[in-house]
Amino acid sequence: MSLEPELESARKCPAVRHTVVRFREHGAVCADDHVAVEEPLEIRLGGFSLAVTMRTPGDDEELVVGFLHSERVITSADDLDVVARYRVAEGDPEAGNVINVLLKGNVRVARELLRRNFVASSSCGLCGKVTIEAIRADLPAVTSDLVVPAVMFQRLERAMGRAQATFERTGGLHAAGLFDADGQLIVLREDIGRHNAVDKVIGHMVLARRLPLDRCILMVSGRASFEIMQKSLTSRIPVVAAVSAPSSLAVEMAAAANMTLVGFVRSGGFNIYAGAARIAHHV
Amino acid sequence: MSLEPELESARKCPAVRHTVVRFREHGAVCADDHVAVEEPLEIRLGGFSLAVTMRTPGDDEELVVGFLHSERVITSADDLDVVARYRVAEGDPEAGNVINVLLKGNVRVARELLRRNFVASSSCGLCGKVTIEAIRADLPAVTSDLVVPAVMFQRLERAMGRAQATFERTGGLHAAGLFDADGQLIVLREDIGRHNAVDKVIGHMVLARRLPLDRCILMVSGRASFEIMQKSLTSRIPVVAAVSAPSSLAVEMAAAANMTLVGFVRSGGFNIYAGAARIAHHV
Repeated sequence: MSLEPELESARKCPAVRHTVVRFREHGAVCADDHVAVEEPLEIRLGGFSLAVTMRTPGDDEELVVGFLHSERVITSADDLDVVARYRVAEGDPEAGNVINVLLKGNVRVARELLRRNFVASSSCGLCGKVTIEAIRADLPAVTSDLVVPAVMFQRLERAMGRAQATFERTGGLHAAGLFDADGQLIVLREDIGRHNAVDKVIGHMVLARRLPLDRCILMVSGRASFEIMQKSLTSRIPVVAAVSAPSSLAVEMAAAANMTLVGFVRSGGFNIYAGAARIAHHV
Repeated sequence: MSLEPELESARKCPAVRHTVVRFREHGAVCADDHVAVEEPLEIRLGGFSLAVTMRTPGDDEELVVGFLHSERVITSADDLDVVARYRVAEGDPEAGNVINVLLKGNVRVARELLRRNFVASSSCGLCGKVTIEAIRADLPAVTSDLVVPAVMFQRLERAMGRAQATFERTGGLHAAGLFDADGQLIVLREDIGRHNAVDKVIGHMVLARRLPLDRCILMVSGRASFEIMQKSLTSRIPVVAAVSAPSSLAVEMAAAANMTLVGFVRSGGFNIYAGAARIAHHV
């Protein structure tokens, strides 16, 4: 049982090949399997360690930029000076797993505030801002006249499936896809962490200077949690669709922030949990 | 679309009833749905805010104790003096969502160390101890002569399914079940956070003074990540089984710590990713 990096596809689909013992009813055989890569990434801000996240390598700069945007450390690409991988000694097992960000001189980050936020958190990116009230006080509700035809969601779900090459192979990755108002896929990212996939998508759009995302639909391959809604609200995404279930806090937050939340998007239909006015249907 | 707490089952199966618009091929109808409850829980140590986690309410004391054990703040129930919910003003929306722990006088916690750990982390419970090397240096490999018959895993998976009442209803909860060497379910816990479900199970066993768990099998309803393996190693669980895929780091850690890791446990079979010597099969 050894892990061999599969170099040719490592950039786009970070999986490693692994020899497993496969038990089936007729007996046990050795077989090749693909395993999704999970590695720590340390995010530093001016050399100061801000966060460590377990992620699937690939599009790390997007992940870091999306994370900083979701945490409202930055508001646009203009706030960024340098986003660079730390120089590390050759042979260092952590090589490539540290990214340092320098902000433009006019961006002031209250380091003590950051520290306090992060001290309070062992949850993914929550950073102590844990109440809906606190979020709502800071961020205005989404204003977007985007209307999505009900028939579009199945199409988005099929487009996600087609684009999710790695998921099919490892069964171990979450995907997040951003679609335009016509249902065209703008960007799709996969990661072992559901929140990371969303941060990568948002980071991609920040770096492309395409914010706000108030004419976009975000689709996630799994469940919709509070944090997915928080990240979406920060980049002004009006419609979030999940292949699986939403949480109670995700539903409450969507309703409070005038966002549309759709769940259980499957071939047979879907459920609307909040913001039904944005879904157009002609029966 | 209003959220109404479903009081009678709120203790065991924390879901809220929610009116949704259900789109199916034949049209749209209003229907009742159940949504898994997600709420923040703040963990304090001697009044000092240690972590905030998004969790499904229920068995909060077990969650806190399991978390502290997984982070190696405590090694047994003997280290605990008080685990108590904070007194809060009536009508406070955060009521019940803060738990404070006081440790026995002889347990010294290096507060600066804790702070440093938690500063470095926005990932679930990772707390800055992110390299396998760091973990391995601290924790010896698992030594357990437990042997599990290959035919047992399907039985465990069915037992999990039967016990997972809430999952069936909301589709939004992860489950973790601990089984003894004969495949009998000892304890099962559900949570919106996969790591929380494992911490609740471990916390239950810490409080029951049943550690180490070196004759037990842990089964999780979803994927097996690095953190699941880390928590299992801390309580000396030799065999971890996942219904879905493992990550590369989970596989590496299992191999390094002499743990058995089984994935894709389905009705037709399963895969062994590490520690095959503990699986007995007679073909």
